[in-house]
Amino acid sequence: MTTAPHPEPAGHEETYVVGVDYGTLSGRALVVRVSDGAELGTATTEYPHAVLETTLPGSEVRLPPDWALQVPEDYRHVLRTAVPAALAEAGVDPAHVVGIATDFTACTMVPTLADGTPLDEVPGLEGRPHAYTKLWKHHAAQPQADRITALAAERGETWLARYGGLISSEWEFAKGLQLLEEDPELYARTERWVEAADWIVWQLCGRYVRNACTAGYKGMLQDGAYPSRDFLAALDPGFADFVVDKVEHPIGELGERAGGLTAEAAAWTGLPEGIAVAVGNVDAHVTAPAARATEPGQMVAIMGTSTCHVMNADVLREVPGMCGVVDGGIVAGRYGYEAGQSGVGDIFGWFVDHGVPPSYAQQARAAGETVHELLTRLASAQQVGEHGLVALDWHSGNRSVLVDHELSGTVVGLTLSTRPEDVYRALLEATAFGARVIVETFRHAGVPVEEFVVAGGLAKNHLLMQVYADVLRLPLSVIGSAQGPALGSAIHAAVAAGAYADVTAAAERMGRVRRGAFLPDEAAALRYDRLYAEYVALHDHFGRGDGLMRRLRALRREAVASRGSAPGSGAGSDDGSGAGSGAGVPEAARETEGALA
Amino acid sequence: MTTAPHPEPAGHEETYVVGVDYGTLSGRALVVRVSDGAELGTATTEYPHAVLETTLPGSEVRLPPDWALQVPEDYRHVLRTAVPAALAEAGVDPAHVVGIATDFTACTMVPTLADGTPLDEVPGLEGRPHAYTKLWKHHAAQPQADRITALAAERGETWLARYGGLISSEWEFAKGLQLLEEDPELYARTERWVEAADWIVWQLCGRYVRNACTAGYKGMLQDGAYPSRDFLAALDPGFADFVVDKVEHPIGELGERAGGLTAEAAAWTGLPEGIAVAVGNVDAHVTAPAARATEPGQMVAIMGTSTCHVMNADVLREVPGMCGVVDGGIVAGRYGYEAGQSGVGDIFGWFVDHGVPPSYAQQARAAGETVHELLTRLASAQQVGEHGLVALDWHSGNRSVLVDHELSGTVVGLTLSTRPEDVYRALLEATAFGARVIVETFRHAGVPVEEFVVAGGLAKNHLLMQVYADVLRLPLSVIGSAQGPALGSAIHAAVAAGAYADVTAAAERMGRVRRGAFLPDEAAALRYDRLYAEYVALHDHFGRGDGLMRRLRALRREAVASRGSAPGSGAGSDDGSGAGSGAGVPEAARETEGALA
Repeated sequence: MTTAPHPEPAGHEETYVVGVDYGTLSGRALVVRVSDGAELGTATTEYPHAVLETTLPGSEVRLPPDWALQVPEDYRHVLRTAVPAALAEAGVDPAHVVGIATDFTACTMVPTLADGTPLDEVPGLEGRPHAYTKLWKHHAAQPQADRITALAAERGETWLARYGGLISSEWEFAKGLQLLEEDPELYARTERWVEAADWIVWQLCGRYVRNACTAGYKGMLQDGAYPSRDFLAALDPGFADFVVDKVEHPIGELGERAGGLTAEAAAWTGLPEGIAVAVGNVDAHVTAPAARATEPGQMVAIMGTSTCHVMNADVLREVPGMCGVVDGGIVAGRYGYEAGQSGVGDIFGWFVDHGVPPSYAQQARAAGETVHELLTRLASAQQVGEHGLVALDWHSGNRSVLVDHELSGTVVGLTLSTRPEDVYRALLEATAFGARVIVETFRHAGVPVEEFVVAGGLAKNHLLMQVYADVLRLPLSVIGSAQGPALGSAIHAAVAAGAYADVTAAAERMGRVRRGAFLPDEAAALRYDRLYAEYVALHDHFGRGDGLMRRLRALRREAVASRGSAPGSGAGSDDGSGAGSGAGVPEAARETEGALA
Repeated sequence: MTTAPHPEPAGHEETYVVGVDYGTLSGRALVVRVSDGAELGTATTEYPHAVLETTLPGSEVRLPPDWALQVPEDYRHVLRTAVPAALAEAGVDPAHVVGIATDFTACTMVPTLADGTPLDEVPGLEGRPHAYTKLWKHHAAQPQADRITALAAERGETWLARYGGLISSEWEFAKGLQLLEEDPELYARTERWVEAADWIVWQLCGRYVRNACTAGYKGMLQDGAYPSRDFLAALDPGFADFVVDKVEHPIGELGERAGGLTAEAAAWTGLPEGIAVAVGNVDAHVTAPAARATEPGQMVAIMGTSTCHVMNADVLREVPGMCGVVDGGIVAGRYGYEAGQSGVGDIFGWFVDHGVPPSYAQQARAAGETVHELLTRLASAQQVGEHGLVALDWHSGNRSVLVDHELSGTVVGLTLSTRPEDVYRALLEATAFGARVIVETFRHAGVPVEEFVVAGGLAKNHLLMQVYADVLRLPLSVIGSAQGPALGSAIHAAVAAGAYADVTAAAERMGRVRRGAFLPDEAAALRYDRLYAEYVALHDHFGRGDGLMRRLRALRREAVASRGSAPGSGAGSDDGSGAGSGAGVPEAARETEGALA
């Protein structure tokens, strides 16, 4: 990105848009030129309250395990600081900015009054945990999610297959049911149950518009309907009117104009009042147009601590183990599919942190590289299959296609000659094999994948990228922007402002991708075919047949429980957190950035 | 051991014996009191030539991979140095020493003239690799061993089952066939093909006596016969008379007097001429009486880098996957059984060297402990099953009961919460499960195991010992001497000298064991039963059914080969070395001593 002033060509009035990407810990504003997507200025603001995981602000109240809350005022703070700073860096006259759009982590839920006031801003409620925003990684609604999934399966709810058979604890209904059951009074005072992705748009344009993406993926809106009153009542009689009272709201398609920037928001941001504010969106999904990948068959993988896969298709199919399929979920007019690998970069990071000896740390220091870089360099020198290993990448469970967070990681083939770079490479490969299982499952379900487009922090590891190309036997493209989500939002802002006919047209001009950056090597691919066959055999043995991994988890829980009032040993602490972590992934990708070569 | 002078009780003439334990790198002499086995003085001599693995002494000749040779003169050197030094340390009048006995690594083979002169001492042959002694860990005869096993299976040779179905590359016939095929001229000049265990006795008493132990376990003498002339001719016509010409020789039972100390050997050692010299023996087997474990059902495990199991029984059974059963192989009059785990302490050492991060090294340093001690301490705080892992201990292949050195190690159950102490404990447990498979296989074959007696360097890790007791559900005894093999030899010297009626009677007085030092804890044992069931399922899946591990090895060999003239990367270097490493184990145990808490 250039930060020097950009003199505008004479006789041609350039226009600009602002994309704001709301991550887990910060929000980033990006100023982009409408004509070509040039990224002219950016600024990031950390949320003052970050993530509330132990206590509430100015309070002694202790939060239970697995809670993760946020303070909506922090989101407004980003508008007041990052947007003006990005404009200043871009050296752009704000008068030439024609639109603003946002993307958000999801599913992140704000309980509000009818006018959009977050409950934590209602006097007297600031000490109540349930008044705060439940961040995507708030996993304390797992029991509620389990009941929703079980009841839907029992009743044969047709929408269950649209989510690969599993409703995540991260989503709107599980979090809503937790609110009802743990704080019924606050549940009653919650007049609207709002995705943060929509709440921020409400703040910008003064209008509540529910975006099609989260309504479908997180709100279980399918074929125009939410889960029935009957279903909700069967979960809990008090939950029967949840949809009617708090959830149901007119839907806005992605890229549509939600409204005009209010005077108040114009004052916060320094942008002109009345400019287009786009319908809200999600960080992973908005990345597809940023990588110019909105056509059917272009699977975008946002690879960070975990991987989120999004892809458009013209057909509606029920793909086993996908995270969801939503009409207009990525771009209006197409079916948007989502899948996920619950552990990718976090597995590599875990191995580097906990499985690499001091001599490697010394060697890396001496060579002026990170341990990731050292291991990548050593592993790069190997032929395919030379390490003699095959691994399962389930250290955080498996989202797609097995949908089982009780699964765990495995390494087979260890000998006394096995060295850290061998295991490291086997772990990289295992995630590629996991991606191939997803690609092949989509294919077999009638949703072919023709190109694999990588975004996120892991894209810069060339060994990893080549391994994916070889394993997938697909041309691998890499997004050309380091700010995929913010650029994607900017594209949506341009469409909402009327500068382009639709998101695909805007993406064509404003998105950036290195098409075919890595191509499969046939000799490597042939040998990987054999290793992949071994992976699939292990995958099916441990993931579908043998119940060993579930029994190991059960034994572990029993063992931990038998310690009585044992100190937190870490064991057992990752239970249940793997299921839905496909959401919010671009943030994870950012968190991993810099960790990998 | 006390080193102060031991005044002899008045009116009672104490007598002494010397045990000499020949290991891989050194020989240790131990002076022991006959009446009670008190260890009075010891001394160790390193072999001046150690192990020849790359070149011959004073020569530019390069040895091929997997060769391991020794120089017999080094063994005499031990007699001239370590024995007098041990006597001096003991402060014992040599006139009161009544016998000497030795134990040796096996199968270690000396090619000699008819008078016992090693070929490497024959002028003109010093530059010929095959003139030297082939140490137990000389693994270059693997192709010959494979042919022997295959031919025996094809012809239905009944003796094959006495060796669990596999003839090791370490043994007499494989090494002999290699000699014939690679240097027929030296084969022709080899008048006797002598176990080093017997050669050293020949040096001491001037008489060649072939001990029953190595003749059976390594020389394939079963029911009074070696493999037939017909069988040998089918291997190679030139090998037909191998037994008749070079191997066959009168057998001495263990504990018998082979002869009297010659004047020459008396001069070397400072011992009285004519005192009893016992029949030769093997380091692992001689340890049983040192631990007072010569009764049926007492399984002695010499636990070091690998584990060798020896046990007596009154019945002859064919136990699947054992290393061998030999009439009088451990004590005269009983069937001696041997089994082995090809990797134990070496797996723990490998993990500590290659899988533990810098923070643990720092923590250990700060606490003044080794990393082994730190991991053991952390793992000790866990409940059974708390780590959520189960591992296969096949990093060096599997000797008993699968007899497959292409198998490899596995860890199942890894999560992002998994820490090094978790994997460490899982590896300790895996070796215990491996031991239980052996114990149960013996039981099912009609050779019950009633007590597990541990010798070797790993005995000092209390966590490991308790895990074995809990997993095996057997009382676990620990040898009371740090010099098990040398004490065992001393016991044999006392028997050969006529001080005791037999080895069992001598062991009762001179051996030392902490009987029932670790007893199974029922709660832990119950939970281990469940983990063991998982281990067995994995064991059978990977070890008997699925060929994944063999295919990974094949792929690895292919990959390494495809590198062309690749530099030695370590990959592939452990192939084939796992098969017979049960032999020579007490040495391995010593090598690991000090490495484990």
